[in-house]
Amino acid sequence: MEKTSVKAVQDEYPDDFAWCYGCGRLNEAGHHFRTGWQGEQTVTVYTPEQDHTAIPGFVYGGVIASLIDCHGTGSASLALHRKNGHELGDGAEPPRFVTGSLHVDFMKPTPQGIPLKAVGVVEEIHPKKWKVQTEVFANDTLCARGEVIAVVMPSNFVDKQ
Amino acid sequence: MEKTSVKAVQDEYPDDFAWCYGCGRLNEAGHHFRTGWQGEQTVTVYTPEQDHTAIPGFVYGGVIASLIDCHGTGSASLALHRKNGHELGDGAEPPRFVTGSLHVDFMKPTPQGIPLKAVGVVEEIHPKKWKVQTEVFANDTLCARGEVIAVVMPSNFVDKQ
Repeated sequence: MEKTSVKAVQDEYPDDFAWCYGCGRLNEAGHHFRTGWQGEQTVTVYTPEQDHTAIPGFVYGGVIASLIDCHGTGSASLALHRKNGHELGDGAEPPRFVTGSLHVDFMKPTPQGIPLKAVGVVEEIHPKKWKVQTEVFANDTLCARGEVIAVVMPSNFVDKQ
Repeated sequence: MEKTSVKAVQDEYPDDFAWCYGCGRLNEAGHHFRTGWQGEQTVTVYTPEQDHTAIPGFVYGGVIASLIDCHGTGSASLALHRKNGHELGDGAEPPRFVTGSLHVDFMKPTPQGIPLKAVGVVEEIHPKKWKVQTEVFANDTLCARGEVIAVVMPSNFVDKQ
């Protein structure tokens, strides 16, 4: 399995929005999830750390939820960026999304020590609201299914709170 | 706000099931969520680390999802333990749950640097399946709502996969 996306949307987020613990390239302590296109689907590949345990030998659900979360916002960013006429690497900054809601169904215990592959399908449900449905595989085993409602981050996001 | 639950169910999980990255007392790298009763509700108080950033100044959603997840399984454990005639500290090992599904609605950005309080209501929907509805507060602000379906861990959980 490929270990990473060659071109990832998180590599091109503006610096101010690149501190996410899940997917921010500037957050040294974080997971560094990287999300890119694979055909019409989006893909994030991540190998959990040894400490990310649920019970010994299996991956902690909170890390799987985190993977689905950032994969969701990243996938929505990729899709809106494309809708806006851009592709990664063309110099335009991709739009940044926040998570409105997150749902995860844990189908099977997820084995540790192998790369997890999150595969997403993105659908626009409103110009500023996108739904991302994700399946997380360990090798060929479907371990979790997720759905994220991702919302375009308002430009005055922080000031508004 | 109280900083921790005086008696927490995670303090009494069997050693083999105390390695969870979210709430395992034996996982040195983990969050060490601790869940106890407060009247008829369950409570987990946790202050995210400085690295747990979404955007600077606000808490990463994956950590909030993790808090809701372990608060859910811990709350279900507390409730079934009580149904079985036990209270924390009486020497009986509480039952261990796994997460069937996790849902989080992010209501407001969650400020960093203050303790988060997850408050849960537990409902039995099947002898082996419990629903936990949780609200997460930063001071008096409701930042997230969550629902966990927690399932009693089969005794042969790992062997069955």
